[in-house]
Amino acid sequence: MKPAFKTVALIGKYQNTEIKEPLLVLADFLRARHVDVFIEESTAQCLDLKDYPSIHIDSIGAHANLAVVLGGDGTMLTVGRALVNHSIPLVGINRGRFGFLTDVSTKSMLDAMAGILDGEYTLEQRILLGAGIVREDKVLSEGCALNDIVVSKGGLARLIELEVTIDGQFVQRQRSDGLIVATPTGTTAYALSAGGPILHPVLEAIALVPICPHTLSNRPFAISSTSTVEITLVHSEDARVHFDGQLHAVLNDGDKVVVKCRDKTISLLHPRSYSDYEMLRNKLRWG
Amino acid sequence: MKPAFKTVALIGKYQNTEIKEPLLVLADFLRARHVDVFIEESTAQCLDLKDYPSIHIDSIGAHANLAVVLGGDGTMLTVGRALVNHSIPLVGINRGRFGFLTDVSTKSMLDAMAGILDGEYTLEQRILLGAGIVREDKVLSEGCALNDIVVSKGGLARLIELEVTIDGQFVQRQRSDGLIVATPTGTTAYALSAGGPILHPVLEAIALVPICPHTLSNRPFAISSTSTVEITLVHSEDARVHFDGQLHAVLNDGDKVVVKCRDKTISLLHPRSYSDYEMLRNKLRWG
Amino acid sequence: MKPAFKTVALIGKYQNTEIKEPLLVLADFLRARHVDVFIEESTAQCLDLKDYPSIHIDSIGAHANLAVVLGGDGTMLTVGRALVNHSIPLVGINRGRFGFLTDVSTKSMLDAMAGILDGEYTLEQRILLGAGIVREDKVLSEGCALNDIVVSKGGLARLIELEVTIDGQFVQRQRSDGLIVATPTGTTAYALSAGGPILHPVLEAIALVPICPHTLSNRPFAISSTSTVEITLVHSEDARVHFDGQLHAVLNDGDKVVVKCRDKTISLLHPRSYSDYEMLRNKLRWG
Amino acid sequence: MKPAFKTVALIGKYQNTEIKEPLLVLADFLRARHVDVFIEESTAQCLDLKDYPSIHIDSIGAHANLAVVLGGDGTMLTVGRALVNHSIPLVGINRGRFGFLTDVSTKSMLDAMAGILDGEYTLEQRILLGAGIVREDKVLSEGCALNDIVVSKGGLARLIELEVTIDGQFVQRQRSDGLIVATPTGTTAYALSAGGPILHPVLEAIALVPICPHTLSNRPFAISSTSTVEITLVHSEDARVHFDGQLHAVLNDGDKVVVKCRDKTISLLHPRSYSDYEMLRNKLRWG
Repeated sequence: MKPAFKTVALIGKYQNTEIKEPLLVLADFLRARHVDVFIEESTAQCLDLKDYPSIHIDSIGAHANLAVVLGGDGTMLTVGRALVNHSIPLVGINRGRFGFLTDVSTKSMLDAMAGILDGEYTLEQRILLGAGIVREDKVLSEGCALNDIVVSKGGLARLIELEVTIDGQFVQRQRSDGLIVATPTGTTAYALSAGGPILHPVLEAIALVPICPHTLSNRPFAISSTSTVEITLVHSEDARVHFDGQLHAVLNDGDKVVVKCRDKTISLLHPRSYSDYEMLRNKLRWG
Repeated sequence: MKPAFKTVALIGKYQNTEIKEPLLVLADFLRARHVDVFIEESTAQCLDLKDYPSIHIDSIGAHANLAVVLGGDGTMLTVGRALVNHSIPLVGINRGRFGFLTDVSTKSMLDAMAGILDGEYTLEQRILLGAGIVREDKVLSEGCALNDIVVSKGGLARLIELEVTIDGQFVQRQRSDGLIVATPTGTTAYALSAGGPILHPVLEAIALVPICPHTLSNRPFAISSTSTVEITLVHSEDARVHFDGQLHAVLNDGDKVVVKCRDKTISLLHPRSYSDYEMLRNKLRWG
Repeated sequence: MKPAFKTVALIGKYQNTEIKEPLLVLADFLRARHVDVFIEESTAQCLDLKDYPSIHIDSIGAHANLAVVLGGDGTMLTVGRALVNHSIPLVGINRGRFGFLTDVSTKSMLDAMAGILDGEYTLEQRILLGAGIVREDKVLSEGCALNDIVVSKGGLARLIELEVTIDGQFVQRQRSDGLIVATPTGTTAYALSAGGPILHPVLEAIALVPICPHTLSNRPFAISSTSTVEITLVHSEDARVHFDGQLHAVLNDGDKVVVKCRDKTISLLHPRSYSDYEMLRNKLRWG
Repeated sequence: MKPAFKTVALIGKYQNTEIKEPLLVLADFLRARHVDVFIEESTAQCLDLKDYPSIHIDSIGAHANLAVVLGGDGTMLTVGRALVNHSIPLVGINRGRFGFLTDVSTKSMLDAMAGILDGEYTLEQRILLGAGIVREDKVLSEGCALNDIVVSKGGLARLIELEVTIDGQFVQRQRSDGLIVATPTGTTAYALSAGGPILHPVLEAIALVPICPHTLSNRPFAISSTSTVEITLVHSEDARVHFDGQLHAVLNDGDKVVVKCRDKTISLLHPRSYSDYEMLRNKLRWG
């Protein structure tokens, strides 16, 4: 039998007050179903919510057994990374037009949550990328990403030169605007705009997608998620590395970005009716 | 300890007499090393070789424990399919410019074979696709492919309309010149020309690559190799299905092509020095 | 002052009876405005229309000064080619979902025609391609196309090998599924699916777009519309040439397809409110 | 009869001392042919050349009737822009691997120059783009480009939102990494890496090529070189505009970049044997 969700944390899009009303509707609905409801602390502050106990995002993993996000894919990425060391599943509810990760609409959220509380759901594991920035053999910083880790040129517009190895084997030197390392989840985000393929979420694979490569035969490449990708910045006037679209570090020539999948995955929880293919069909307007 | 190769079958490119000399050099080399050498029957006939016993291609799997192909990737595809029910590994030797599967040159073949006989090699398993053509619930024919199975328009030039399901779930209706279902091996062949990604050979994945799709968001898609892909021909004036580039059947509206990976894999045997990445670098001129 | 349209020919989509009602509404509207109305002969037969005089399509150019097409882009292509030696402008009215050339909907057709009769319109000249098929220095056949002339493989699925010259200068040998030579009009049709650029209708240019080229750097190329493109079929097992998507000829190795823009253009007539960019935005769903 | 070149200015790649020897060889060769030779001032300083009179780059147009550039395409772009108001033709000589604009090698330069002095050459006119940056209806700055003008995101990695009009007509809002406006010359540079088509140099056209557009149907678009393209930065966290790959300005939301072809063109002078198609074939390795 599937575990019941007795304690649910609600997390809203950062600094967005429009979600106050659906968030309260959802909280009241859950309380009426005898679920303990917590509101994530900064969400509670932003929306001035005092009827429910608040909880710091770092404590959600330990105290709740379901996290519900009201926002867009960006909010899901942030929450997903914050909960990476916990096995708590995430549900994404969106009000807006787009959401590969936030597949429940505010219109259908009560029906969806009712079903979920009754055990009518599926769980999907999504891999995460971890990366370390290495300068002169020292790890400068580390981080993780649910969508992608991107080494790319900064604002000075010249292409950068990278050297790529996989599991210690030399793959190529490339001159390009940059290189995207994407999880299957990330293949429907930036990597898709750069010409990458879609990888089904169940694939234990990561995609390497060059951005505007100088050599036209330098094509998107999918490799095993057990592989370690090392990207060395050979030459640039200005290069950066981003994690899920957020600036992580400015790179110097010679710096390495070492990317490897995390052992832990993120659990996405979907209503029973969810279909990956329907999601793709809708988002990419295949119909 | 790795098994010794005591019986080796040599197979030449169909109707190609230029390989006679290297084939004989190789046969003599192997005999000098006390290896039992057989020549594939039609190769022996074409080259008029009588010094070595000949063997029918269907018997190679049972009687030899290594098959060496002298030819191009096309020959490897043919031999690979013929040996699919046996676990005998294949080595590919090429004289010409191109060969993702035939990675030993005639120049280096004796060194390579000496190493291989000494156990200096790596084995790589490549998945195969099997497919059945279904008309009105009856299986018309079946076949397998090491590179790709392609449903495409014939010579009448109009796009065709296909419906695709994966594991019974509806994925999309597409109007296009056709759809390629490719193994990782096949992603460096036709699928690459059609805009598909490269999938590393170890990935347990297959790529669906639309050919000139009418809907521009209809992008290449990689899915698990455990999935079943069903392609229904909704409408066309002239449609075909090809296996590894060979015409397999003319399709009627309503026909289904049901594609699934075979349980058996093909074993490619490479000299120790072989690197997948070096192969890609050379073939795609990344350097 | 713009010329008045005193004689209008109406042409319906081939064998399509759904357009009977809008066609009659339009005919009655024009007659009420004192315009002489003719119905194209096969349209009149198919729809069993006897209230208006019928006219053979070959006589429209000489007897009418405006041709109105009710159908899709395919019908416009057919009528455009039939009227190529006359300067009579065409208006396209569509009932269905798609139409780069048929930009007036049946809903708005009376308003649009009222404006057009009042001189509220713009004229746009579209170039046409002419081509001859040359075998052993003899011209086998000739034809013209408003969208594209395509040399491509037939149903036997192997790539074909072509040699391309422009104005007598060798450009390249290519191995591909084929080569599209497209007018600006044709760049939003098949050429777009094959990865070609959009050329604005006013450009005096034609696009050469390879279909699934073996060499990845073989990219779409736009050249002057004054150039002559000669495509020689070097090698194939089965190759064809199509004009506007219709099979024109089966090609032998050594055959040449010599493509050059016609001197005459097609005049498309648009209501005043028409915008090329709005058309693109709608058809390609840029919004 | 073609004009004789009596006064030639030699210009070397900035800060590159390797060209000293071929530059002197060329200067001596020209002097022996009774040509007046000037060395561009900063080139002379960098290479410590005192045997020939030096000349400031801004004076070359008025005093010389041929400019010979020893360097790569980057040097040609710089010199081309500097000489834009003069009708003096340019010859490009390259030592390195790549050069769409520098088509004479140092090996063949004496033969090529001998031919050129004898009138054995062709002239090719290349269009230039001019652009103004407009903030709150004031022109902040202006500049020109021989390859491309690019509005793109800076180092903060988020896509930017642009609005594009052509000749005052709204074309689209796009979310992307940026937009390239390229001359035909520029279509073999950055625009090609971003997926753009090649435009033949004689075309009076410019290409709009989106960089990693969010909407997949947002495809490269070629328009008349008489058109004015206005790009408004709707929203970004960090956006820039570059001219020929050099940072020109940091943009604020609401800023407009107004691009229009210059009336003046650049004259490229090629040896008689030069062929655009051979250049493409070599550079893109079509062979």
